[in-house]
Formats: sequence, structure tokens, C-alpha cells
Amino acid sequence: MSKFGMYAKFTAKPGQRDELAEILLEAAAAAEAVEECELYIINFTDSDPDTLWVTEVWSRKEAHAASLTREATRAAIQRAMPLIAGVESIPLNPVGGKGLSFADATLL
Amino acid sequence: MSKFGMYAKFTAKPGQRDELAEILLEAAAAAEAVEECELYIINFTDSDPDTLWVTEVWSRKEAHAASLTREATRAAIQRAMPLIAGVESIPLNPVGGKGLSFADATLL
Repeated sequence: MSKFGMYAKFTAKPGQRDELAEILLEAAAAAEAVEECELYIINFTDSDPDTLWVTEVWSRKEAHAASLTREATRAAIQRAMPLIAGVESIPLNPVGGKGLSFADATLL
Repeated sequence: MSKFGMYAKFTAKPGQRDELAEILLEAAAAAEAVEECELYIINFTDSDPDTLWVTEVWSRKEAHAASLTREATRAAIQRAMPLIAGVESIPLNPVGGKGLSFADATLL
């Protein structure tokens, strides 16, 4: 079973980054109960005061898709929407490394 | 003490991605012994067959800088250089979330 990863870049409306980060941190806290969510890290970046990057890893792609339909997720999105100017994402296929459990650290 | 994160994008020379990934996986295996390296995940991306993204989190920025001077790291870089067409990185300040231990999950 392949993991699914994503870097999600949130551009907050000016001055709204920290409030948006609080909502994402609450979403991360809610994800503590979701076993298939392996990583959900909120990051600031020095290069842009309005940007947040969220690093996500899920045990499978379908688990990420399912999370978007959960009531708690939908409520968080509703609260976050007015704070957000834009979202971009980079979908990833995590293949191995340190910090998560991989069934097989070789590529084949 | 603040963590330090990075998304590092490696563009491999054509056809060299998997060999480069093997070297990065070996680097991740070597990092198992480095306590301050909390995350070092190698990712493929469906959007470009020559791209690798590495997700890194270190317990502090200086630990990342120090890792680059280690003999094992320098040897891996030497082996990887001929396979690499380009590297870009996005430095990050991880502030909280699921999957790593944060001293304080609030922002202030």
C-alpha cells in the first residue's frame, strides 16, 4: 500500500496568516484521531509573511480524499476560507526515509 | 528551541532519478543515527519523472548545517552530484501539527 503525500501552500489574506495557522493547528489536533493521517505539519516561511506550507502524509491516497468529506474538516474549511487568498498543492509519492514507517525502503 | 524544515527539490538528469533516490534513501538510513534529524522523506512526483522532493525536519537549524559537514553526507553528495541537474529548496519554520513532537503547539 503506497502512502500519499502533499505540500499544500496556503496564501493568507494580508495579516491573516496566524489566524489561519491556528485553524490548521486545530485541524492537525483533530487528525490525531485519524490513524491514516501520518503527518500534518504547519510551517511558516521567512520568505513570505502571508504563506503557510502544510506537509501532509497519509497511509493511502483514499484516506486523504475521505478526510475532506469529514464534518470536522468541512467545518474547518468553512472557517478558513475567508482568510485564504489562494491554495496550491504539490502531490507526492513518499517512497522511503527517516521518520515514518515504510513497508519497504527500496524502490522496487 | 525551534525546529528547522526544508522541502528540497532535486531535478535528476534524464533517467537518473531512481539512482539518485537510492543515494538519498541511503542518506536517510545514515540519518537514523542522527537524533536531531526528525524527518527525511524521499518523494517521487507523478508530474515530472525527473523530480525528487525531500521533506526534512531538524530539531534546530544548526543541526542541519552541521549535517552537511559530516563525512557520510559529503560522500553521498559526491556520489549524487553527477546525477543532478538542479536543486532548489524551500526553507521552513515548522510550528506544530501531527506526527512530530512540538514543545508548544500554540504559535506564541
